[in-house]
Parts: sequence; structure tokens; C-alpha cells
Amino acid sequence: MRRVIECVPNFSEGRNRETIDALAQAVRGVSGARLVNVSADPDHHRTVLTFLGEPDAVAEAAYRCAQVAVERIDLRHHQGVHPRIGAVDVMPFIPLRNVEMPECAQIAREVGYRIARELEVPVYFYEHAAFPGRPADLPTIRRGGFEKWVGHPLTGNRAPDAGPASLHPTAGAVIVGARGPLIAFNIFLNTDRVEVAQHIARVIRQERERVPHLAGVRALGLFLPSRGVAQVSLNLTQPDQSPLWWVLEYVRTLAAEHEVQVLETELIGVAPASAIVGAAAHYLQNPALREEHVLDLWLDPEWNP
Amino acid sequence: MRRVIECVPNFSEGRNRETIDALAQAVRGVSGARLVNVSADPDHHRTVLTFLGEPDAVAEAAYRCAQVAVERIDLRHHQGVHPRIGAVDVMPFIPLRNVEMPECAQIAREVGYRIARELEVPVYFYEHAAFPGRPADLPTIRRGGFEKWVGHPLTGNRAPDAGPASLHPTAGAVIVGARGPLIAFNIFLNTDRVEVAQHIARVIRQERERVPHLAGVRALGLFLPSRGVAQVSLNLTQPDQSPLWWVLEYVRTLAAEHEVQVLETELIGVAPASAIVGAAAHYLQNPALREEHVLDLWLDPEWNP
Repeated sequence: MRRVIECVPNFSEGRNRETIDALAQAVRGVSGARLVNVSADPDHHRTVLTFLGEPDAVAEAAYRCAQVAVERIDLRHHQGVHPRIGAVDVMPFIPLRNVEMPECAQIAREVGYRIARELEVPVYFYEHAAFPGRPADLPTIRRGGFEKWVGHPLTGNRAPDAGPASLHPTAGAVIVGARGPLIAFNIFLNTDRVEVAQHIARVIRQERERVPHLAGVRALGLFLPSRGVAQVSLNLTQPDQSPLWWVLEYVRTLAAEHEVQVLETELIGVAPASAIVGAAAHYLQNPALREEHVLDLWLDPEWNP
Repeated sequence: MRRVIECVPNFSEGRNRETIDALAQAVRGVSGARLVNVSADPDHHRTVLTFLGEPDAVAEAAYRCAQVAVERIDLRHHQGVHPRIGAVDVMPFIPLRNVEMPECAQIAREVGYRIARELEVPVYFYEHAAFPGRPADLPTIRRGGFEKWVGHPLTGNRAPDAGPASLHPTAGAVIVGARGPLIAFNIFLNTDRVEVAQHIARVIRQERERVPHLAGVRALGLFLPSRGVAQVSLNLTQPDQSPLWWVLEYVRTLAAEHEVQVLETELIGVAPASAIVGAAAHYLQNPALREEHVLDLWLDPEWNP
């Protein structure tokens, strides 16, 4: 019975090819961990690695790439459009097969304690790894970012769960947690007016309390200097609730009110088959289409829809 | 190193639940063969099973369901809208992993000879299993169907490759072969005018010599009594050449010339991940989207894009 978890750390470096390669190599060097995606974005100035495998291997690979990041990334010289508080900004662990969430939270904490102790970086635990009574929500923990907290004592609500009570001078803090699958979905608009993207993001944040398909959708409006266009950057934290096609058409409708169109979209990292097949089903007008219709999935003898 | 082939037999029974269940049970009874899809259509009066596994198990399962079909299906009382010549109308074998096409053709022939010998049904070999100098093309071999050939000697070009030189009185003939993956894709139109579907199918057959995306597309225009609508029934025999979305939009455009719209679509059996992800990529305006972005596929340690 193979046990599989996934780790999707976000690093505050999206431009320096050597650092990005070193992060990826740190994962590749661990037998039993499989690196499946590297998404680097120069405007976000952020790289997202996706790797998976048996829990011990994934935990070791997570520590090793955190070590590379703390050594190489200096937040004092880092400016991107995406909010961040650390060189390893966030490090979620996701249970995939034959592992339950509580065990995954335990793995997250073990890796977090090791990072705090060996790399001397404060660590916050989030979502399923958060301790009772402590903030569990990623945007809340990250609020203010590196610049606001560097040089200030981290006390009270800001006290870390592990490690020193002040940000690491170059690497900030690490937010480590356990969560379910999430889809990072960016929508590019054919406008340089960032306020259009910001307005759309604000509407989504307001409406998500009310509209079931927007439940758990996190949204930011950003301007991307390298492309000269605005972007609605989304995290679908409850992907079963938020069909990709529905979210895209919702954004398309809001953008059209400003006479703005969708240029294209991107996924950061990977997405569950159900989300991608769901998009195909909608647009192909094939309501019966499910993961079960994907031949390749059946080649895995353990795949059981 | 796991070796996997697929078998997708088409049976001339799409209404009788007991017979359909018996066909499926014949496959389920073979250890090592995995039944992944049962598509039964009352108008086509046809059931398509999809199963896969290691070659010996798939060959055994193929024989056993052919045996059930020959015992239970009587073509003298069979009328559907889909052309057919046999109770087991066509039985393709598809190499999936660590098996090459020539070996798959050999497996097809072995199953075909066994069906001919033990069930006393004439067998034609098609595509990669066809003998040199013999017809290899499925529509050519099937032309005329059961009614045209029953009671007539099968000689010359019509002589079977194995088995008796006349159709089985109730089960007709079996066309056994080896081929690459194929997508069976049906498009329902919001009209009862079958001539619209037939016109679209004719245009596709004419244009496929000229339009690369239509290469290898087989098309029929059918009327479906149970739904009261027309259908364009398609086989995309070179799915890498013919994106699902492109074919759908092509049919949509042709239908619009008759003021007819697409009601919905369906897949018969399963389809390669690349085809479904390709449709999502197109409609989500995400040109970079590939199978590599489907998390679930990576859970298979042998999956190597």
C-alpha cells in the first residue's frame, strides 16, 4: 500500500535561474520524492515547486529545499508583486493517498520544527497544522509581510510557533501547514489598468461569502511589469466548490463591464484531474464526462475513482 | 515492468440489460483484466466495453465476452441505427504500456483464431492485424452488414481470415484487429432532421483528405428515435491530429448553416488524457496546459510524460 503526500513550497525567487535550479535539484536529490512541476514567475518573483512521494522522502526534500532557499534568497533585495513574508514563504503538505490529514499535519510540524531549529528561522503553522487558538489562515499570518515585521519582536499574536521570536534578517519566516488540494489559477487581462484586476478581486472577496462557487476563493489584482498587463491571481482553496470554467466566466463577465477581455490563463503547479476534466465537460457540452473517462488514469492499478 | 493492453469490443446489443450485464460479468470474471467502461446505447443498439490489463488476461476476457455475445445476441432480431456485421461487431486491441503494435496484432490474431475455431464464427482481421493484400479498413470490411451477407458464401475479397466461409446465422462475423487509441465522439443536434447530420458527416468525409485536423475522422449522420434528434457520430482515429474542441467547433459551424445548434456531446468509452486536457486548455485559454498539470496522473509511479 503506497502512501503518498505532496508538498508545494512557494519561494521568494522567480528570476535567478541558478537559485531556481538549486531549489529543484535539492528535491531531485532525494530518492522517493518526485518533482513534478516548477513554476517560476518573474513578476510575482516567486517559484512554486510541486513534488510528491512517500512521506519521509517528501519531508526530507522539503527541508532540503528550504535550506537552499534560506541560504540563497535575501528578502532585503526582493521586490515582487506577490505578498510574502519569507524566502520560503509558504510550505503546504497535502495528503494524497493512504495518508490522512492529521498525519500530514504532524509531518508539516516536524518539518517546521526542523527548519526553525536548524535554519534558525521563525515558523508559523497554518490550516490543519495550526495549533488551537492560533491564527490558521495564510493571509492573516502573512499580513504586513517581511518589511513590516523585520527588526521587530514577534510577540503575542505574532509570536511564531517555533524558532526565534524575530524574523530571520534575510529569510524572514516560514509558514508551514497541511491542507487539501488547491488550484492556483491566474487570469491575464488585456489591459494595463491594475485597478480593473483589483476591482474584480475585491468583488470576488466580497461575494465569496454569498456565492457557493466562490467559497474559499482568494483573489488579488496585480500588475505584471514584464508583460505590461493586469492579472487576477486566484487560489481556489475548495476546488470541488469552484469549477475553473465558472470562475473564468465570472471574471470574464466582470472584466467586460470595464470593456476588458481575458487574454489567457495559467495554472501554477498542478491541478486535480476532476477540475480539468470538469472544464472540458462544460465547454464540450458533455455533462457525463468524468475522470473515469480518462484512459491514462486507469493505467495506475491503484487508481480507484 | 507492467505490460498493459486495452480491448474495446463493440457488441450489437444496447437495450437488453441482462445481456449487457452478462458481457460485463464475463470480463470481470477474469483476474488481471480491469473493466473500466460500459457504454450502452439503445438507438445505436450497441454496447462498447473497455477493459485493460496484462495481455494474457485481456485476451482471455475478450474471448469470454465474445462467447457470451455469440450465445445471446441474435442479429435476425436486431435493428439499430449503427452499421454492423456481427454480434461482436468489432474487437480492437490497443497497446498501452510496454507492448508494441506488432505484438498486439499477434494477440488480436490469436483471439480471432480462437473465436473462429471455438465459436464457429468467421473472423476478419483489420488494421494492424490485417494480412498483407487483404482489406484493412473497418468500414470496407463491414460494408453491406449482416443482412447483405447472411446466407451467401464468403469468397474472394469477402472470404474471412479465419473460420467458416459463411456468416454465423445469428452472430454474423467478428472483425478483430489492433490499432492505436481512438476517440468515439458523438454530437447531438437540436433537430430531428437527420439530413443535417448526414450533410455534416458527408462534408467531414470529403474534407478529411484536405484538412489536417480531420485526418482519419470517420463520420456518420444518424437519427436517434429515443431522443427524437439527429446525431453526428464520429470516430477520431488519429486523436493527436483532431482536437476534440476543434471538431466540435467545426460541426457547430456547419450546423449553424442550417440554423441548427449543438445540444450536447458524449464520449463512448474512454479517451486519452491528452485529448481531454487539450479541450480544457483551449477553452480555458491556457495554451501551456498539458497532461503534466494533472496531479492524479503523477500518482502512478510508472507514468512518464
